[in-house]
Amino acid sequence: MKVYGRSRATRTIHMDESASEHAACEASRQGARYDPVMANKTLEYRDGAVTLKGYLADDARPGARPGVVLFPEATGVGDHVIEKARRLAALGYVALAADPYGNGQQAQDLPQAIELMNAVRSDVGRWRARAQAALDALCAQPGVDRTKVAAIGYCFGGSTALELGRSGAPLGAVVSFHGGLVAPKPEDARNIRARVLVCHGAGDPLIPPEQVAAFEAQMRETKVDWQVCVYGGAVHSFTNPDADKLGNPAFAYNADADRRSWAAMLSLFEEAFGAR
Amino acid sequence: MKVYGRSRATRTIHMDESASEHAACEASRQGARYDPVMANKTLEYRDGAVTLKGYLADDARPGARPGVVLFPEATGVGDHVIEKARRLAALGYVALAADPYGNGQQAQDLPQAIELMNAVRSDVGRWRARAQAALDALCAQPGVDRTKVAAIGYCFGGSTALELGRSGAPLGAVVSFHGGLVAPKPEDARNIRARVLVCHGAGDPLIPPEQVAAFEAQMRETKVDWQVCVYGGAVHSFTNPDADKLGNPAFAYNADADRRSWAAMLSLFEEAFGAR
Repeated sequence: MKVYGRSRATRTIHMDESASEHAACEASRQGARYDPVMANKTLEYRDGAVTLKGYLADDARPGARPGVVLFPEATGVGDHVIEKARRLAALGYVALAADPYGNGQQAQDLPQAIELMNAVRSDVGRWRARAQAALDALCAQPGVDRTKVAAIGYCFGGSTALELGRSGAPLGAVVSFHGGLVAPKPEDARNIRARVLVCHGAGDPLIPPEQVAAFEAQMRETKVDWQVCVYGGAVHSFTNPDADKLGNPAFAYNADADRRSWAAMLSLFEEAFGAR
Repeated sequence: MKVYGRSRATRTIHMDESASEHAACEASRQGARYDPVMANKTLEYRDGAVTLKGYLADDARPGARPGVVLFPEATGVGDHVIEKARRLAALGYVALAADPYGNGQQAQDLPQAIELMNAVRSDVGRWRARAQAALDALCAQPGVDRTKVAAIGYCFGGSTALELGRSGAPLGAVVSFHGGLVAPKPEDARNIRARVLVCHGAGDPLIPPEQVAAFEAQMRETKVDWQVCVYGGAVHSFTNPDADKLGNPAFAYNADADRRSWAAMLSLFEEAFGAR
């Protein structure tokens, strides 16, 4: 098994692997509803010739449950998206953190992240197929109610969730957190079948106000159910507690925006899929 | 007592007046926590020489509670804002629907509403004083915890709530629903002490995207905690079920935007004042 992260997520993965009663009790004490047999694992799936390694979080409770595919920041599947997947699993969703690049590759720095990201998104067909492969892998899980699936994402992953929506995928909800809002085929916005929520940091220098305005103008031309929430004081990566480590003022964690956007997402899921 | 509304609100006011046990049981059955002795009433207060007649909704439960002043649409205190005040009272807030014009005056049509509104807002000092008078009247109520007060408003009332915020009033939260966002003194945004939430209909022709962008640009210059939520498909008056009766496509009720914006407001109140 690939060890995706350092610090907290890595420690938690080890907890799952040992699946000790102590770990389950500890998780329960902390308010999460983890099951001792939680089926968290690396999930291999394919997009054509490329083998992808996502991270599946599932508390293995009985019955079919809504599924959420999570597209990570441009750095790939790491601590940040794994923790979000685990939080969703603890709420009763089956959550797949999708691998955008193949073999679970993580970028080591920003230039590499941009290079990896551009290689995927430079061809909209390839980009959508890569996203669809993750959705298909999620839907193939036995615990997933295929009629209740959502796509969310962070940064490049937010753009990916929106792009999967524009492909016409049968999603109940799409949520972008600090995602880029430029669409290769803006006219495809009309294909979106999901409720759409865009959570945006008002001070995000990577996604300037003009880009948000252009997105809203595109969405106004559709009959899609959409919302944009703009959080004052937030910049890029506002959901990522590790963002501050980059030492770049364009990237910073913002606890208020993180909490509010997460709550807005859960409200949308409740609208789309019923209460959990 | 002035009868503010027709239809539902009028009927409800009569229920309060009779205060019959049957009415209380019926309200309870519907999930509201109305008290048989609910202290809903017309509240007279003054702004200089002008006598104002607001509507106070209070379920008279023991203890000091957060207070909310509600500024109505430009038509004045009627069914719409009274119902919102009553909903807040049922949740444990003391709610005052504020009279913007004096003697509880309601506009009979749109031109009169615009005339009344302009007479108040054409002088920012007068406008703020009129709003402050309502806040003072709310804070003078024995059930109100004066350290926990919010201002919300609809249309012109949303602008008023923001303007009260810009005056530096010690508010915990300010929420504008389909309110105009032009500030007479934009530089006063820095005086805002409240958490600010602006709920805006993406298709509102009375508040074009450029006005929202200018508001956001002003707020970016401050350290205020602010959010703007834009609801696709919503136009002006999206919280008002009677808006469709105007037969003007600029005004329409939107159940999704109404529900989502109300929930966002309650979340903000919970942040500011704790859970109810």
